[in-house]
This record gives sequence, structure tokens and C-alpha cells, in this order.
Amino acid sequence: MAVRPIAFLSDFGNADEFVGVVHGVIRRISPGVEVIDVTHGIGRGNVRSGALALTRAIQYMPNGVVLAVVDPGVGSTRRAIAAETGWGHFVGPDNGLLAPAVAIVGGATRIVSLEAEEYRLPCAGATFDGRDVFAPAAAVLASGEARLDDLGPDASPDSLMPLLLPLVEHTDNAVSGEVWWVDRFGNAQTNVSPQDLELIGLRPGGIVVLQVGAIEHELEWRGGYGAGGDPIVHVDSSGMIAVAVPSGRADEELRLGEGMGVVFKSPARGG
Amino acid sequence: MAVRPIAFLSDFGNADEFVGVVHGVIRRISPGVEVIDVTHGIGRGNVRSGALALTRAIQYMPNGVVLAVVDPGVGSTRRAIAAETGWGHFVGPDNGLLAPAVAIVGGATRIVSLEAEEYRLPCAGATFDGRDVFAPAAAVLASGEARLDDLGPDASPDSLMPLLLPLVEHTDNAVSGEVWWVDRFGNAQTNVSPQDLELIGLRPGGIVVLQVGAIEHELEWRGGYGAGGDPIVHVDSSGMIAVAVPSGRADEELRLGEGMGVVFKSPARGG
Amino acid sequence: MAVRPIAFLSDFGNADEFVGVVHGVIRRISPGVEVIDVTHGIGRGNVRSGALALTRAIQYMPNGVVLAVVDPGVGSTRRAIAAETGWGHFVGPDNGLLAPAVAIVGGATRIVSLEAEEYRLPCAGATFDGRDVFAPAAAVLASGEARLDDLGPDASPDSLMPLLLPLVEHTDNAVSGEVWWVDRFGNAQTNVSPQDLELIGLRPGGIVVLQVGAIEHELEWRGGYGAGGDPIVHVDSSGMIAVAVPSGRADEELRLGEGMGVVFKSPARGG
Repeated sequence: MAVRPIAFLSDFGNADEFVGVVHGVIRRISPGVEVIDVTHGIGRGNVRSGALALTRAIQYMPNGVVLAVVDPGVGSTRRAIAAETGWGHFVGPDNGLLAPAVAIVGGATRIVSLEAEEYRLPCAGATFDGRDVFAPAAAVLASGEARLDDLGPDASPDSLMPLLLPLVEHTDNAVSGEVWWVDRFGNAQTNVSPQDLELIGLRPGGIVVLQVGAIEHELEWRGGYGAGGDPIVHVDSSGMIAVAVPSGRADEELRLGEGMGVVFKSPARGG
Repeated sequence: MAVRPIAFLSDFGNADEFVGVVHGVIRRISPGVEVIDVTHGIGRGNVRSGALALTRAIQYMPNGVVLAVVDPGVGSTRRAIAAETGWGHFVGPDNGLLAPAVAIVGGATRIVSLEAEEYRLPCAGATFDGRDVFAPAAAVLASGEARLDDLGPDASPDSLMPLLLPLVEHTDNAVSGEVWWVDRFGNAQTNVSPQDLELIGLRPGGIVVLQVGAIEHELEWRGGYGAGGDPIVHVDSSGMIAVAVPSGRADEELRLGEGMGVVFKSPARGG
Repeated sequence: MAVRPIAFLSDFGNADEFVGVVHGVIRRISPGVEVIDVTHGIGRGNVRSGALALTRAIQYMPNGVVLAVVDPGVGSTRRAIAAETGWGHFVGPDNGLLAPAVAIVGGATRIVSLEAEEYRLPCAGATFDGRDVFAPAAAVLASGEARLDDLGPDASPDSLMPLLLPLVEHTDNAVSGEVWWVDRFGNAQTNVSPQDLELIGLRPGGIVVLQVGAIEHELEWRGGYGAGGDPIVHVDSSGMIAVAVPSGRADEELRLGEGMGVVFKSPARGG
């Protein structure tokens, strides 16, 4: 099998040497393997945020191996796994982090539990599985030096821990959803799709009422950011409904944060 | 044409997956192309700051392709362009970001507007041209898979949007300039050159009066940082006059920020 | 000699283009050399913190060249050096930054002072030796284009500036140490080893008394983080005694910071 790249996502941040050490371990084991850093800025232990970032990124990554580590349960009983999919391999903790991206690429055909000692680094502590368990597994899968079989016992492909994501709720003239992501620019991505809004009669170019808590905002549904200081609604680069302020921050202006509920409604007609 | 590296600068930050996704796109299109991250820490939408960082960095980058994205007008009428220069290619928004670096390497010989659909990624939203427009163009220019012609219609090389930068003003015994950059260490780079100071009789090793607002500071013009807690003036690593506090932060101590005016004067003589 | 990778650590941060420029310089000089970024998040001028991070990381880096730049004395009389060891080469300022990692890999067999002008970049200022002195030296050592001899005059291998690190102090039933590192997750690594604790009769699974200032905390010595909101003591991924709060931040909860003294004691028995 040809050497494939690794796409690496974590909540390790850039202040410490965690990311660099994982790169070093991969390079020591499989010198020819490239590593693409998807991001290491996921909030500490925020499995959902990591899973969503991976889901948004996966279609843009070269086929190969995903190494994802957001692992608040390191050292607990959660499994360390590698999953085989039509896209390539996914390596990480089995805590919901991998499930949405695995689903997007068509689901897992096989899963193994990373228990083979010869593919783990020996270590006094048991708190850095990114370095000791996941990086070695990703390295040998990427280089083709090992096959999935070699890394540990088979588990059912259906046993992958799912991530519970809130569903959008529809009523006649409203869609209730949630903020999934606030990016660096203060844009707030929701779990609401353009189709959800169209089902209640909203259209691009028209006005959308956004309710946050008890407060209602009338926003234009634009084709892009455009200009100006007023908040707008638009379809963002992942295809989801997002709230933005072209020359400001939507999170601050509308008091939006990750996990907060939002309701989209039609503007009141007549009266 | 041989494969060349891409030097990538943006205001995407490291918290989200934007940078990783651009790397992924480049790698999918042109697997053999290297990417050097110049920085992704440019302030949000700060075109001037991005342009200045690129200007400082360009001479240290290997010849190839610059991919620069600080793009507050994404989705507006600003052009997406690629410019050909004696140094290599520059890809990015035509909003002033590229102009100073292009000028430093001798100016553009050709410019195209990135309109060819076959070199854009299809996307629902229109807010991430770094991924959908600029990265694919940079990738195929770097690999040699496409020529400038292929990417879109020709535009006049003179049509590159300039960046308006403040000029230094001279009087008999004073030079008025501006802070261009405050770096991580609190050093404040100005748009004043050592020659500017020498024109009013100031010399390395001597005393320089720095006026910030209504306050005057007497600073030593040193050959390097040296030691100590007093602010100094020196020629920085870009060859510009900068203010530093060897064991502290000049920005905090002298209340200096990007864009602020500063006046350098000779110390009063006699009396 | 085969081309080897460079492991690059600094306090340059990610906001400015410093790291990118060093990558560019290396790539211009030695196109085939890989660079692994260990971290650039070391606190400004914090030589000890940089030295400790390098010490923790070195065993996980591929053999080659270390390029380490935490250099508050840039432009002063401190030497710029390259050291030869059984592991590979170390390049950086001779201010204590390199010494602990060099010692861990068996000590320096040779040291040169980086004075050869042909391997320095010419520059107006003298404040960015990372770019002008250290990067070129690391690049040519990594590519094999130059030998240590070529870079400057020999110095005694014993002349490497040591880093003074506090020793642990033992009494009959207490071990006094210091916090060496607080990581992104708020975990506090100390300079105390598990053997130190075992010498005063403490055992994994038992209770440890941690004294911070005048306050005593009773903590469980766990085999890993485990779960829950209570602070614990454990052997961390570097093999040192660390304090953690599995679902919180030990630094905030126990008011621990880098450089602070800590005392570990046996719980009082009987009474």
C-alpha cells in the first residue's frame, strides 16, 4: 500500500510541546509520512466541538489517516480505536469524536481496539495516549507498515460510540436549532440548514427573524457577507445557516455562544 | 516547470480548522507541493498588517507562490487575482494585501482574474474563497499543472490595487512617522528609516527624542537590544527604526500601538 | 551524510511571521530538509521553560538537528553555538536553553561558536539571530552541506552554559520541590519523581498531602487522571509527579504556578 498522509486534529493547543511531540513520534516511526494539522485549537476536552470541526474538514483532506485526539477520558475505560472506512482510516478515542465524520464518509467497515503492545510506546504515566497509543497506530497505518489486524482485536463496526447531536425542531412557522460553532471572526454557525428555513417559507434575499432568548432580531438573508455593521443570515462555507456581522462580531453583538438555542421565524405579516 | 513551494499567510488564526482545510485542499490537488506557513496571526481583516508582514517576509521565502488571504471583502466585488512577478506568483484578494510585496520584488508583469470555474471548488456559501478560489489556484501554479492563462482573463498589470501607506514627514529637526507593527515581544516598528533620522543629525550611539502624543522620551539609539529596563531606539531586523525595552514591553511602557503617530527629534541643544 | 530533520522550538509565538521566516530561510538554504515545530509557545524569554520543554520532547524527536531559540540576550555577549552529541546537533544561544537536553542525550562531544560569516545572513539589525545565525547553521548541518568545523572556532565541550535547576529537598517525612510546568490543561508538573515520594513511604493508590503555601490538601495518588472534580496526584507522561484535576484545572483550584514551591508529605497517622 502506498504511503498516505495523516490529518491531525486535537485540543492540544499551541502553547505546549504536545503537538510537536506527536509529530516527532510519527516521524520517528514512519519517516516518509506527511502530517497535515487540521487544527489544535479545539476547546479543552470539547468532544462535540472537535467532532464538528472534523466533520466540516474531512471532505477537504487527502485520503489517508485521520488522527483525532480530544480525549477527556484518557486513562479511563473508553476504548482507543482505529476504524476503516471507504475514505481511509480514523484513529482516536472512542468517545463520539470520530463518529460524525466516519458517518459522512459512509460509515466504518471495520474497527479494532488499539491493544497491541508492540504498537504502543512504553510510558510511566497513562495520560498522553495521543503520543503513546494513537500516534504510533496512525503512523504505521499511514506508512502501510501495519494492517488494521495488527493493531488489536476486532470489534463490531456498529460499536462506534455515537455523538448525540441536537435535532432541529420544526413548527408551522418556526425552526428551533442551536449554535454549533463560533469561529475566530465571531460568526455563529447553527445546526439549521437552508432547507429548514425554506420549509417555513423563508427565502434568500428576504428577511428572517432570529430569536435569541427573549429578543427578536430582523436579519437579511444574504448570498454572502456583503458589507456593513448589521447582522445578517447567510449560508456559510459548510452549507449551514450562520449569523454574521460583516464588519463586526455576531457572537458579541447578538450574544451568541456555542450550544445556545436559536429560533428562526418568518417575519410577522399583516396586522 | 518544476514544483515550487507555497508561502501561506492569512488572518485565519489557529483556533479553527481554516488553515488545515486550505492545506488539505492544496494537498488533494497537488500532492507534491510544500506549504510554508508564514503566519496566520494577522489581525482579523487587517489588510495593512498582513501586507506589511508579507513585505517583511518575502525576501526570506523560497521562490514560488505566495498565497495570502486577509479578505474582509470576500464575496463583494473585489477581484480574486494571481499576479506574475520575477520572484514567482502571488495569489489572493486584490485589496492592497499583495501590492507592497509585489512592488518589492519588482512589480507584476501580468495579472489574471481568478474566474475559471474549473479551478474553483464548488460551494454553497461564498465566504471562504481561501479554500474555494485561492488555494486551488495556488496549488496548480505551484505544481505547474496550470499556467496563469488557464486561471482566468488577463487584467492590466497596472491594475493591482495599491495599499496606501503613510509617508514619513520631515521638518528641519523632526521626523514624523507611525507605528507599523507591535510584535509579540512588545517591540514597536515604525515606518521611519535610519536614513530619516540621520537627515536630522541623529546618530547611532546618541540620544533620540521620541514624542508620543504630548509626552517626550529621551532614548539611546543602540546597535542592538542590549540589556536593562529603559526603552531604546534601534534598527530592527527589517532595517526600520523601532522602539524596544530590552527586558520589558515598549508598547506598554510608552503606550504605543499600531497606527499611532510618533515624532523623532534631536535632543535640545544648549539653552 | 544523509539529510536529517530539524526540530525547532522557540518563544516566537504564532502571532507574527518569525516562525515562518525561519522556515523560509531553512527552505531556501536546504530545500530537502524537513522541519518539525516542537512548540513556539514558550513564554517570552523564559529560558528555563524552553529548556524543560526541550528536555521533555527530545527523546520523541527523530535524530537530527535541534534548533532552539529562546534568547533574551540576543545581541549581547552570549555565544551562539552548535553542539555535537551522540543524538545529533543542537543549535541555539548558549544561555542554558540547550544544556539539560544535551545532558539527557549523553553530553556534548564538541562545541563551536557560530562565527563564520559565510553561514550567517547579512542584516542591518542584530536582533533576530534565529533568522540570521541559527537557522542557516541548522540548515547546513541538517543537509550535510557543512560540517561543525565550517561554522566557527572550536570551544570546549565543557563550556556549555548550564541551567540551574532547583533540587528536591528531603526530610524524614516530606519532599520539597517546585512546579516546573503548568500545561494548557492546567496540570502542574513538579520536579519531584515518584521515587522521591516512595522514599517517604508514599505509595500509588494511597493519600498524599500536598502543601502549597500554608494550605494542605489531601490528594489521592492515582494511576491516571480518572474522573471527577477533585485534585489528584499522578505520574505524568514525562514520568514526574504532577497535580491534576480530571475535569478541571489544578492550577486554578490549588493556586499553582510555574516556579512555586510545593511540599509533599505523608498523611498524619494516629493521634
